[in-house]
Amino acid sequence: MSPGGPTASGPVGTTPPRPWGPTTAQRERWRAADDAARPYRLEHLRARLADEDLDAWFGLRPENGRYLSGFVLGDGEEKVCGASGRLFVSADETVVVADSRYRLQALEECTASRIAELADGFAEAWPELVASLRPIGGTVGGSVRRIGVEAGFLSHAEWLRLARATPDIELVPLEGYVEAQRQVKEPAEIERISAACAIADAALEATLSDIEVGRSERELAMALEWRMRSSGADGLAFDVACLGGPRAALPHGSPAQRRLRGGEVLLLDFGARVEGYRSDMTRTLFVGEAAAADLEIYGHVAEAQSAALELLRHALANDRPITNREVDTAARDIIASAGHAAHFGHGTGHGIGLATHELPSLGRSAQEAALPSPTVFSVEPGIYIDGRSGVRIEDLVSFDRGSGRLDVLTGFPRAITVVGA
Amino acid sequence: MSPGGPTASGPVGTTPPRPWGPTTAQRERWRAADDAARPYRLEHLRARLADEDLDAWFGLRPENGRYLSGFVLGDGEEKVCGASGRLFVSADETVVVADSRYRLQALEECTASRIAELADGFAEAWPELVASLRPIGGTVGGSVRRIGVEAGFLSHAEWLRLARATPDIELVPLEGYVEAQRQVKEPAEIERISAACAIADAALEATLSDIEVGRSERELAMALEWRMRSSGADGLAFDVACLGGPRAALPHGSPAQRRLRGGEVLLLDFGARVEGYRSDMTRTLFVGEAAAADLEIYGHVAEAQSAALELLRHALANDRPITNREVDTAARDIIASAGHAAHFGHGTGHGIGLATHELPSLGRSAQEAALPSPTVFSVEPGIYIDGRSGVRIEDLVSFDRGSGRLDVLTGFPRAITVVGA
Repeated sequence: MSPGGPTASGPVGTTPPRPWGPTTAQRERWRAADDAARPYRLEHLRARLADEDLDAWFGLRPENGRYLSGFVLGDGEEKVCGASGRLFVSADETVVVADSRYRLQALEECTASRIAELADGFAEAWPELVASLRPIGGTVGGSVRRIGVEAGFLSHAEWLRLARATPDIELVPLEGYVEAQRQVKEPAEIERISAACAIADAALEATLSDIEVGRSERELAMALEWRMRSSGADGLAFDVACLGGPRAALPHGSPAQRRLRGGEVLLLDFGARVEGYRSDMTRTLFVGEAAAADLEIYGHVAEAQSAALELLRHALANDRPITNREVDTAARDIIASAGHAAHFGHGTGHGIGLATHELPSLGRSAQEAALPSPTVFSVEPGIYIDGRSGVRIEDLVSFDRGSGRLDVLTGFPRAITVVGA
Repeated sequence: MSPGGPTASGPVGTTPPRPWGPTTAQRERWRAADDAARPYRLEHLRARLADEDLDAWFGLRPENGRYLSGFVLGDGEEKVCGASGRLFVSADETVVVADSRYRLQALEECTASRIAELADGFAEAWPELVASLRPIGGTVGGSVRRIGVEAGFLSHAEWLRLARATPDIELVPLEGYVEAQRQVKEPAEIERISAACAIADAALEATLSDIEVGRSERELAMALEWRMRSSGADGLAFDVACLGGPRAALPHGSPAQRRLRGGEVLLLDFGARVEGYRSDMTRTLFVGEAAAADLEIYGHVAEAQSAALELLRHALANDRPITNREVDTAARDIIASAGHAAHFGHGTGHGIGLATHELPSLGRSAQEAALPSPTVFSVEPGIYIDGRSGVRIEDLVSFDRGSGRLDVLTGFPRAITVVGA
């Protein structure tokens, strides 16, 4: 193949992937938008810290670090990067930690931060790092006394080492702190989720012709993955779930060597990643022909999803706040009325952005709260009949009380789709 | 394409992948070997716990859970599986926690364990779970008082919740506890690492013809990934590193759109996963023609690797213990003598198995200790010249004092390889 030419065909099928992904100009604009937004994100965070008498913030969750500093870690890279990417927020600066392997990257990505190069262990460097911070709300010359720490991400073993290294400084455990802020989305964040949705839409469309009786779940999952990754996605949002027939009843499940049979469903749950932001969509297709029992549950699930979406639209049209719980209940009631209450074990939706699952949670057990705005979340009711079949329909919506708009970001039709007939 | 037929070609090139992976019979034999080994693994663990007056063990690291119970989580799945897969070891049983999504999987995979289904939050279930355990070394009717906890993997926030839930029970933080046990490898473990190596070897061999001036790093990384995953690997051991020219000097780095040029090096660091076990290999190839400066550092790196391997062979031949530090020093001295001490910033090797990086560590800063046996680790010296070029050569070896053997598991030749000429 000639240098720089188009790449060859994917795992199955022969159509070369089209470039569904964003342009270089779009990517540059998004990065500029982040750079412009970070001072406001930090200002908001500092105001909240000051309210709670916290002098500084220390975090290690990669999504939060990227949001506040621009430092990028790949999925799972936090396990091998040491302390690189850990972040301090003080009164007047952000400090990104990087060991020698990550120093150049930090300098390139975090132009608004001070980079603290780490020579030895993190706990050894901790006292000096903390001493270098000017406290939020502190007087000139004062030092940090209370530091908020992402306690849901720091291991207990390491917490003990840090506490021992600076016995005079109070470590205050924080959970879901920056996450609460991240659930409200900026326009350039929603654009990236939307771009990831477009890639997933097109990938599914292009993969439909590969779906036929006899194909294995694993082959189809790889075909879908390959199409997303070779046509603009930076990666997957999460491993593709591709589950045929009775396996569609596993709310969780990875693709197997099992081969598709006619007359059963095929559940596909997948998403792409674009500049850190993720998409998430589930479609349940009918292979060969649609069985009456499957069509029936499909109808209930579609109706449940419509009920949730209608409730959201209605609230927006009437400019009234709406809670996560109300949305869940709208979908759940339809499924319960159809006699399937016990077959819908998960929540109706979840927020999405830099993480696949984030706030707001539209689960049954989440604390009831008004939906933030603007925000993006999934609406994904399902019915799962153990050992027989399962249906889930999942779309992403952006919800914006300011404009009164509910936009469905996932474009692939949710109408009944028979494939491989 | 006909149902069940061979899959089409990969991302670049046209050769359909051959089945380099293990047979179904091999996979079944390995699973049976694990089932047979688990009672011994647990017996050893219980003896160590008893020595430290610990009544039970609680862990959540996925690799350790798989080792002790058989419960399998995909890479990164620990972020979305809730408490599923968490494990207790008591005097007479192992208890695997699973929420409703994972119950069936736990029942299938952990046939020797009790499955504790979780309805609500983990901290809410904790007191009852702990109360159900018979203490190691305890008297009949006694209850657990001291429980060893994987403190390097439990978040501090969750530690606080568990401690609060059972104030009368002492939680004792453990780090590297099961890891110390896992560094000694059983024959069926080494076989799986070796099978993963064979897949990676064949994938690189098949990808050589795709490497030419003008190809992007990302295209080649995907080609290599595709070949491993479509020919027997269950997945990657880690994301493929594919770095051309000056980018090879980044000890860490993900593939970019950058296109290969003639006269530069191409560093490939990659591995496959087979039944949970991983391979890891680095080859530095020469694109078009080999530059004299690159050949020179290649010579030093190869010599450094040989020195480390020779030292290992010599120790085995003379049946003398050898430490991690001695191996590192053997390689490092050669590189230092060549004037490149400052250009070799990482350790000479790391253990590998269920995790890509595990004990023993052959780093400069690791505590000096005799190498365990039998064990498997990498030997991977490198020289990196900032902004110019980099060379690393990495092989996996199994080291066995019992048989006196040092087997190199990675098969791809390390001789100078010029590609795309």
